[in-house]
Amino acid sequence: MSATIEIPERSGTAFRIAEGQTLTVIDPRGCQVADLLAFNAADVDEVISSGRTLDYAETIYLTTGHTLYSNRSNPLLEIISDTVGRHDFLLTPCSHDTFRHFYPDLPTHRGCFGNLAEALAPYGVTEDRIPVAFNCFMNVPVDGTTGKLEVLPPISQAGDHIVFRAAMDLVIGLTACSAPASNGGSFKPIHYRVD
Amino acid sequence: MSATIEIPERSGTAFRIAEGQTLTVIDPRGCQVADLLAFNAADVDEVISSGRTLDYAETIYLTTGHTLYSNRSNPLLEIISDTVGRHDFLLTPCSHDTFRHFYPDLPTHRGCFGNLAEALAPYGVTEDRIPVAFNCFMNVPVDGTTGKLEVLPPISQAGDHIVFRAAMDLVIGLTACSAPASNGGSFKPIHYRVD
Repeated sequence: MSATIEIPERSGTAFRIAEGQTLTVIDPRGCQVADLLAFNAADVDEVISSGRTLDYAETIYLTTGHTLYSNRSNPLLEIISDTVGRHDFLLTPCSHDTFRHFYPDLPTHRGCFGNLAEALAPYGVTEDRIPVAFNCFMNVPVDGTTGKLEVLPPISQAGDHIVFRAAMDLVIGLTACSAPASNGGSFKPIHYRVD
Repeated sequence: MSATIEIPERSGTAFRIAEGQTLTVIDPRGCQVADLLAFNAADVDEVISSGRTLDYAETIYLTTGHTLYSNRSNPLLEIISDTVGRHDFLLTPCSHDTFRHFYPDLPTHRGCFGNLAEALAPYGVTEDRIPVAFNCFMNVPVDGTTGKLEVLPPISQAGDHIVFRAAMDLVIGLTACSAPASNGGSFKPIHYRVD
Protein backbone atom coordinates (compact mmCIF):
# COMPACT_ATOMS: atom_id res chain seq x y z
CA MET A 1 0.00 0.00 0.00
CA SER A 2 1.29 3.44 -0.90
CA ALA A 3 1.73 6.38 1.47
CA THR A 4 -1.24 8.52 2.40
CA ILE A 5 -0.85 12.12 1.25
CA GLU A 6 -2.46 15.09 2.98
CA ILE A 7 -4.16 17.97 1.16
CA PRO A 8 -4.05 20.83 3.71
CA GLU A 9 -7.26 22.69 4.52
CA ARG A 10 -8.54 25.06 1.82
CA SER A 11 -6.05 23.85 -0.79
CA GLY A 12 -5.88 21.53 -3.78
CA THR A 13 -3.55 19.37 -5.80
CA ALA A 14 -3.28 17.57 -9.13
CA PHE A 15 -1.50 14.36 -10.11
CA ARG A 16 -1.52 11.57 -12.67
CA ILE A 17 -2.86 8.07 -12.12
CA ALA A 18 -2.52 5.18 -14.53
CA GLU A 19 -5.29 2.97 -15.92
CA GLY A 20 -6.07 0.24 -13.38
CA GLN A 21 -4.71 2.15 -10.37
CA THR A 22 -7.02 2.97 -7.49
CA LEU A 23 -7.50 6.37 -5.89
CA THR A 24 -8.73 6.38 -2.29
CA VAL A 25 -10.12 9.70 -1.03
CA ILE A 26 -10.30 9.79 2.76
CA ASP A 27 -12.07 12.22 5.08
CA PRO A 28 -9.62 11.98 8.01
CA ARG A 29 -11.61 13.97 10.58
CA GLY A 30 -15.16 13.67 9.23
CA CYS A 31 -17.57 16.23 7.76
CA GLN A 32 -15.26 17.53 5.03
CA VAL A 33 -15.68 17.72 1.24
CA ALA A 34 -13.17 16.92 -1.55
CA ASP A 35 -13.92 18.20 -5.07
CA LEU A 36 -12.66 15.71 -7.65
CA LEU A 37 -11.96 16.35 -11.35
CA ALA A 38 -10.63 13.86 -13.90
CA PHE A 39 -9.17 14.42 -17.36
CA ASN A 40 -7.87 12.01 -20.01
CA ALA A 41 -4.09 12.29 -19.45
CA ALA A 42 -3.48 11.98 -23.19
CA ASP A 43 -5.96 14.74 -24.11
CA VAL A 44 -7.32 17.02 -21.39
CA ASP A 45 -10.19 18.13 -23.65
CA GLU A 46 -11.76 14.85 -22.55
CA VAL A 47 -13.09 15.60 -19.08
CA ILE A 48 -15.43 14.31 -16.41
CA SER A 49 -19.08 15.05 -17.27
CA SER A 50 -21.88 15.21 -14.72
CA GLY A 51 -24.45 15.30 -17.50
CA ARG A 52 -23.28 12.11 -19.21
CA THR A 53 -22.77 10.32 -15.89
CA LEU A 54 -26.17 11.17 -14.38
CA ASP A 55 -27.84 10.23 -17.66
CA TYR A 56 -26.22 6.76 -17.71
CA ALA A 57 -26.52 6.14 -13.95
CA GLU A 58 -30.17 7.28 -13.85
CA THR A 59 -29.59 8.69 -10.37
CA ILE A 60 -28.10 11.83 -8.84
CA TYR A 61 -26.57 9.86 -5.93
CA LEU A 62 -23.59 7.85 -7.11
CA THR A 63 -21.93 5.15 -5.05
CA THR A 64 -20.23 1.72 -5.33
CA GLY A 65 -20.85 0.21 -8.76
CA HIS A 66 -21.35 3.48 -10.58
CA THR A 67 -19.01 4.79 -13.28
CA LEU A 68 -17.99 8.41 -13.84
CA TYR A 69 -18.07 9.17 -17.58
CA SER A 70 -16.33 11.76 -19.74
CA ASN A 71 -17.89 14.30 -22.12
CA ARG A 72 -17.07 11.72 -24.85
CA SER A 73 -19.08 9.00 -23.05
CA ASN A 74 -15.99 7.02 -22.05
CA PRO A 75 -15.60 5.59 -18.52
CA LEU A 76 -13.02 7.53 -16.51
CA LEU A 77 -13.41 6.20 -12.97
CA GLU A 78 -15.40 3.37 -11.41
CA ILE A 79 -16.47 3.66 -7.79
CA ILE A 80 -15.37 0.35 -6.26
CA SER A 81 -15.91 1.12 -2.56
CA ASP A 82 -17.74 3.83 -0.63
CA THR A 83 -18.32 3.99 3.13
CA VAL A 84 -20.48 7.13 2.92
CA GLY A 85 -22.97 6.85 0.04
CA ARG A 86 -23.73 10.54 -0.23
CA HIS A 87 -21.78 12.71 -2.66
CA ASP A 88 -22.75 15.60 -4.92
CA PHE A 89 -22.45 15.78 -8.70
CA LEU A 90 -24.65 18.83 -9.38
CA LEU A 91 -22.54 21.83 -8.34
CA THR A 92 -19.40 23.55 -9.59
CA PRO A 93 -16.43 24.20 -7.28
CA CYS A 94 -16.70 27.20 -4.94
CA SER A 95 -14.94 30.38 -6.10
CA HIS A 96 -14.53 34.07 -5.30
CA ASP A 97 -17.91 34.58 -6.99
CA THR A 98 -19.71 31.93 -4.99
CA PHE A 99 -18.22 33.34 -1.78
CA ARG A 100 -19.58 36.80 -2.70
CA HIS A 101 -22.99 35.24 -3.37
CA PHE A 102 -23.35 32.99 -0.34
CA TYR A 103 -21.12 34.63 2.28
CA PRO A 104 -21.33 38.38 1.63
CA ASP A 105 -20.06 39.12 5.15
CA LEU A 106 -16.97 36.89 4.93
CA PRO A 107 -13.69 37.59 3.15
CA THR A 108 -13.81 35.87 -0.24
CA HIS A 109 -11.58 32.89 -1.01
CA ARG A 110 -10.55 31.52 -4.41
CA GLY A 111 -12.07 28.29 -3.18
CA CYS A 112 -11.84 24.88 -4.78
CA PHE A 113 -12.19 26.53 -8.19
CA GLY A 114 -9.06 28.66 -7.73
CA ASN A 115 -7.19 25.81 -6.07
CA LEU A 116 -8.03 23.43 -8.92
CA ALA A 117 -7.14 26.01 -11.56
CA GLU A 118 -3.68 26.54 -10.06
CA ALA A 119 -3.02 22.84 -9.53
CA LEU A 120 -4.22 21.86 -13.02
CA ALA A 121 -2.47 24.66 -14.95
CA PRO A 122 0.75 22.62 -15.41
CA TYR A 123 -1.36 19.96 -17.17
CA GLY A 124 -2.79 22.47 -19.65
CA VAL A 125 -6.20 22.85 -18.00
CA THR A 126 -7.42 26.45 -17.88
CA GLU A 127 -10.13 27.96 -15.64
CA ASP A 128 -12.79 27.81 -18.35
CA ARG A 129 -12.26 24.05 -18.63
CA ILE A 130 -13.26 23.34 -15.03
CA PRO A 131 -16.69 21.67 -15.11
CA VAL A 132 -19.05 20.38 -12.44
CA ALA A 133 -16.86 18.37 -10.06
CA PHE A 134 -17.63 15.07 -8.39
CA ASN A 135 -17.82 16.43 -4.87
CA CYS A 136 -16.84 13.57 -2.56
CA PHE A 137 -18.76 13.58 0.75
CA MET A 138 -20.71 16.75 -0.20
CA ASN A 139 -24.28 16.43 1.06
CA VAL A 140 -26.78 18.11 -1.27
CA PRO A 141 -30.27 16.71 -0.77
CA VAL A 142 -32.87 17.57 -3.40
CA ASP A 143 -36.59 17.85 -2.69
CA GLY A 144 -38.13 15.81 -5.48
CA THR A 145 -41.38 17.75 -5.41
CA THR A 146 -40.15 21.34 -5.36
CA GLY A 147 -36.67 20.75 -6.80
CA LYS A 148 -35.13 22.75 -3.96
CA LEU A 149 -31.59 21.75 -3.07
CA GLU A 150 -29.68 22.40 0.15
CA VAL A 151 -25.99 22.24 0.96
CA LEU A 152 -25.85 20.44 4.33
CA PRO A 153 -22.89 19.22 6.39
CA PRO A 154 -21.49 15.93 5.10
CA ILE A 155 -22.55 12.73 6.82
CA SER A 156 -18.99 11.35 6.58
CA GLN A 157 -17.28 10.29 9.82
CA ALA A 158 -13.54 10.34 10.54
CA GLY A 159 -11.84 7.74 8.36
CA ASP A 160 -14.68 7.37 5.87
CA HIS A 161 -13.50 6.99 2.29
CA ILE A 162 -14.43 6.38 -1.33
CA VAL A 163 -12.29 4.33 -3.72
CA PHE A 164 -12.14 4.82 -7.51
CA ARG A 165 -10.45 2.64 -10.14
CA ALA A 166 -9.08 4.48 -13.17
CA ALA A 167 -10.49 3.25 -16.49
CA MET A 168 -7.80 5.14 -18.43
CA ASP A 169 -4.65 7.15 -17.68
CA LEU A 170 -5.92 10.27 -15.94
CA VAL A 171 -4.97 13.66 -14.58
CA ILE A 172 -6.81 14.12 -11.29
CA GLY A 173 -7.60 17.39 -9.52
CA LEU A 174 -8.53 17.09 -5.84
CA THR A 175 -9.23 19.60 -3.05
CA ALA A 176 -9.94 20.01 0.63
CA CYS A 177 -13.00 22.23 0.36
CA SER A 178 -12.95 25.90 1.35
CA ALA A 179 -16.68 26.73 1.59
CA PRO A 180 -18.18 26.96 5.08
CA ALA A 181 -21.58 25.51 4.16
CA SER A 182 -20.10 22.40 2.55
CA ASN A 183 -18.35 21.14 5.64
CA GLY A 184 -20.34 22.39 8.59
CA GLY A 185 -18.35 25.61 8.96
CA SER A 186 -14.95 24.07 9.65
CA PHE A 187 -11.97 23.66 7.35
CA LYS A 188 -10.11 20.40 7.48
CA PRO A 189 -7.62 18.46 5.40
CA ILE A 190 -8.36 15.61 3.00
CA HIS A 191 -6.17 12.52 2.63
CA TYR A 192 -5.68 10.42 -0.47
CA ARG A 193 -3.74 7.42 -1.63
CA VAL A 194 -2.92 5.98 -5.05
CA ASP A 195 -2.35 2.20 -5.21
CA MET B 1 -43.10 40.96 -33.20
CA SER B 2 -40.63 39.04 -35.33
CA ALA B 3 -41.38 35.99 -37.45
CA THR B 4 -41.57 32.58 -35.83
CA ILE B 5 -38.91 30.20 -37.12
CA GLU B 6 -39.28 26.43 -37.24
CA ILE B 7 -36.57 23.96 -36.25
CA PRO B 8 -37.55 20.76 -38.10
CA GLU B 9 -37.80 17.50 -36.15
CA ARG B 10 -34.47 15.96 -35.09
CA SER B 11 -32.42 18.98 -36.11
CA GLY B 12 -30.78 22.03 -34.57
CA THR B 13 -29.70 25.57 -35.30
CA ALA B 14 -27.50 28.35 -33.94
CA PHE B 15 -27.87 32.14 -34.09
CA ARG B 16 -26.83 35.33 -32.33
CA ILE B 17 -29.03 37.42 -30.08
CA ALA B 18 -28.14 40.81 -28.63
CA GLU B 19 -28.19 41.89 -24.98
CA GLY B 20 -31.76 42.87 -24.06
CA GLN B 21 -33.43 40.83 -26.80
CA THR B 22 -35.87 38.11 -25.87
CA LEU B 23 -35.83 34.53 -27.12
CA THR B 24 -39.16 32.68 -27.05
CA VAL B 25 -38.96 28.89 -27.38
CA ILE B 26 -42.31 27.36 -28.32
CA ASP B 27 -43.50 23.76 -28.29
CA PRO B 28 -45.93 24.00 -31.22
CA ARG B 29 -47.53 20.55 -30.91
CA GLY B 30 -46.84 19.73 -27.25
CA CYS B 31 -44.67 17.07 -25.60
CA GLN B 32 -41.41 18.00 -27.33
CA VAL B 33 -38.00 19.01 -25.95
CA ALA B 34 -35.61 21.77 -27.09
CA ASP B 35 -31.99 21.65 -25.87
CA LEU B 36 -30.67 25.19 -25.37
CA LEU B 37 -27.02 26.29 -25.15
CA ALA B 38 -25.72 29.83 -24.71
CA PHE B 39 -22.23 31.27 -25.21
CA ASN B 40 -20.82 34.76 -24.75
CA ALA B 41 -20.78 36.01 -28.36
CA ALA B 42 -17.52 37.87 -27.72
CA ASP B 43 -15.75 34.82 -26.25
CA VAL B 44 -17.29 31.38 -26.63
CA ASP B 45 -15.09 30.03 -23.83
CA GLU B 46 -17.71 31.61 -21.58
CA VAL B 47 -20.60 29.15 -21.64
CA ILE B 48 -23.81 28.22 -19.88
CA SER B 49 -23.10 26.30 -16.67
CA SER B 50 -25.61 24.01 -14.97
CA GLY B 51 -23.37 23.77 -11.92
CA ARG B 52 -23.14 27.53 -11.32
CA THR B 53 -26.83 28.04 -12.09
CA LEU B 54 -28.17 25.29 -9.81
CA ASP B 55 -25.85 26.50 -7.05
CA TYR B 56 -27.18 30.08 -7.22
CA ALA B 57 -30.83 29.13 -7.82
CA GLU B 58 -30.80 26.51 -5.02
CA THR B 59 -33.21 24.37 -7.02
CA ILE B 60 -33.00 21.91 -9.91
CA TYR B 61 -36.30 23.17 -11.40
CA LEU B 62 -35.83 26.58 -13.00
CA THR B 63 -38.67 28.80 -14.10
CA THR B 64 -39.77 32.47 -14.31
CA GLY B 65 -37.47 34.67 -12.24
CA HIS B 66 -34.44 32.39 -12.43
CA THR B 67 -31.21 33.33 -14.20
CA LEU B 68 -28.98 31.01 -16.24
CA TYR B 69 -25.33 31.68 -15.37
CA SER B 70 -22.07 31.10 -17.21
CA ASN B 71 -19.01 29.17 -16.06
CA ARG B 72 -17.63 32.62 -15.09
CA SER B 73 -20.65 33.33 -12.86
CA ASN B 74 -22.09 35.98 -15.18
CA PRO B 75 -25.83 36.06 -16.01
CA LEU B 76 -26.47 34.89 -19.59
CA LEU B 77 -30.25 34.55 -19.77
CA GLU B 78 -33.11 35.45 -17.44
CA ILE B 79 -36.32 33.43 -17.63
CA ILE B 80 -39.05 36.09 -17.85
CA SER B 81 -42.05 33.90 -18.72
CA ASP B 82 -42.75 30.18 -18.61
CA THR B 83 -46.09 28.44 -19.24
CA VAL B 84 -44.73 24.97 -18.38
CA GLY B 85 -42.57 25.12 -15.26
CA ARG B 86 -40.75 21.85 -15.81
CA HIS B 87 -37.42 21.81 -17.62
CA ASP B 88 -34.22 19.80 -17.15
CA PHE B 89 -30.75 21.13 -16.38
CA LEU B 90 -29.04 17.89 -15.32
CA LEU B 91 -28.40 16.00 -18.56
CA THR B 92 -26.19 16.42 -21.61
CA PRO B 93 -27.63 16.39 -25.14
CA CYS B 94 -28.39 12.98 -26.64
CA SER B 95 -25.77 11.56 -29.02
CA HIS B 96 -24.77 8.43 -30.93
CA ASP B 97 -23.40 7.12 -27.62
CA THR B 98 -26.58 7.77 -25.65
CA PHE B 99 -28.64 6.13 -28.41
CA ARG B 100 -26.43 3.02 -28.17
CA HIS B 101 -26.89 3.01 -24.39
CA PHE B 102 -30.63 3.62 -24.14
CA TYR B 103 -31.98 2.34 -27.45
CA PRO B 104 -29.77 -0.63 -28.42
CA ASP B 105 -32.42 -1.92 -30.83
CA LEU B 106 -32.88 1.36 -32.72
CA PRO B 107 -30.63 2.89 -35.37
CA THR B 108 -28.40 5.46 -33.66
CA HIS B 109 -28.81 9.18 -34.35
CA ARG B 110 -26.29 11.96 -33.80
CA GLY B 111 -28.97 13.53 -31.66
CA CYS B 112 -29.05 16.99 -30.18
CA PHE B 113 -25.31 16.68 -29.50
CA GLY B 114 -24.45 16.18 -33.16
CA ASN B 115 -26.98 18.75 -34.29
CA LEU B 116 -25.60 21.35 -31.86
CA ALA B 117 -22.00 20.56 -32.83
CA GLU B 118 -22.73 21.14 -36.52
CA ALA B 119 -24.78 24.28 -35.93
CA LEU B 120 -22.23 25.80 -33.53
CA ALA B 121 -19.08 24.97 -35.52
CA PRO B 122 -19.23 28.25 -37.52
CA TYR B 123 -19.09 30.11 -34.19
CA GLY B 124 -15.91 28.31 -33.11
CA VAL B 125 -17.59 25.89 -30.69
CA THR B 126 -16.22 22.34 -30.92
CA GLU B 127 -17.83 19.10 -29.69
CA ASP B 128 -15.78 19.01 -26.50
CA ARG B 129 -17.15 22.44 -25.54
CA ILE B 130 -20.78 21.29 -25.44
CA PRO B 131 -21.81 21.15 -21.77
CA VAL B 132 -25.02 20.21 -19.97
CA ALA B 133 -27.79 21.98 -21.90
CA PHE B 134 -30.83 23.74 -20.50
CA ASN B 135 -33.39 21.29 -21.82
CA CYS B 136 -36.61 23.25 -22.34
CA PHE B 137 -39.74 21.21 -21.59
CA MET B 138 -37.71 18.08 -20.71
CA ASN B 139 -39.34 16.30 -17.79
CA VAL B 140 -36.80 14.64 -15.51
CA PRO B 141 -38.25 14.08 -12.05
CA VAL B 142 -35.80 13.14 -9.28
CA ASP B 143 -36.72 11.01 -6.27
CA GLY B 144 -35.31 13.01 -3.38
CA THR B 145 -34.87 9.92 -1.19
CA THR B 146 -33.18 7.50 -3.57
CA GLY B 147 -31.79 10.06 -6.04
CA LYS B 148 -33.25 8.07 -8.94
CA LEU B 149 -34.10 10.15 -12.00
CA GLU B 150 -36.46 9.32 -14.85
CA VAL B 151 -36.87 10.80 -18.32
CA LEU B 152 -40.64 11.13 -18.76
CA PRO B 153 -42.70 12.72 -21.55
CA PRO B 154 -42.86 16.52 -21.25
CA ILE B 155 -45.93 18.07 -19.64
CA SER B 156 -45.96 20.87 -22.27
CA GLN B 157 -49.11 21.32 -24.33
CA ALA B 158 -49.33 22.69 -27.89
CA GLY B 159 -48.36 26.36 -27.83
CA ASP B 160 -46.61 26.31 -24.47
CA HIS B 161 -43.46 28.42 -24.34
CA ILE B 162 -40.62 29.80 -22.27
CA VAL B 163 -39.17 33.28 -22.75
CA PHE B 164 -35.58 34.30 -21.98
CA ARG B 165 -34.03 37.78 -21.94
CA ALA B 166 -30.37 37.97 -22.96
CA ALA B 167 -28.13 39.54 -20.31
CA MET B 168 -25.27 39.87 -22.83
CA ASP B 169 -24.71 39.35 -26.55
CA LEU B 170 -24.99 35.60 -27.04
CA VAL B 171 -24.59 32.76 -29.47
CA ILE B 172 -27.51 30.39 -28.94
CA GLY B 173 -27.70 26.73 -29.92
CA LEU B 174 -31.21 25.24 -30.03
CA THR B 175 -32.66 21.89 -31.11
CA ALA B 176 -35.82 19.90 -31.69
CA CYS B 177 -34.92 16.81 -29.68
CA SER B 178 -34.16 13.46 -31.31
CA ALA B 179 -34.41 11.03 -28.38
CA PRO B 180 -37.57 8.93 -28.13
CA ALA B 181 -37.78 8.93 -24.31
CA SER B 182 -37.57 12.72 -24.07
CA ASN B 183 -40.70 13.43 -26.06
CA GLY B 184 -42.97 10.45 -25.56
CA GLY B 185 -41.66 8.56 -28.58
CA SER B 186 -42.58 11.08 -31.26
CA PHE B 187 -40.41 13.59 -33.11
CA LYS B 188 -41.74 17.06 -33.65
CA PRO B 189 -40.50 20.51 -34.57
CA ILE B 190 -39.71 23.37 -32.20
CA HIS B 191 -40.53 27.01 -32.93
CA TYR B 192 -38.64 30.06 -31.73
CA ARG B 193 -38.74 33.81 -32.07
CA VAL B 194 -36.26 36.59 -31.29
CA ASP B 195 -37.74 39.99 -30.40
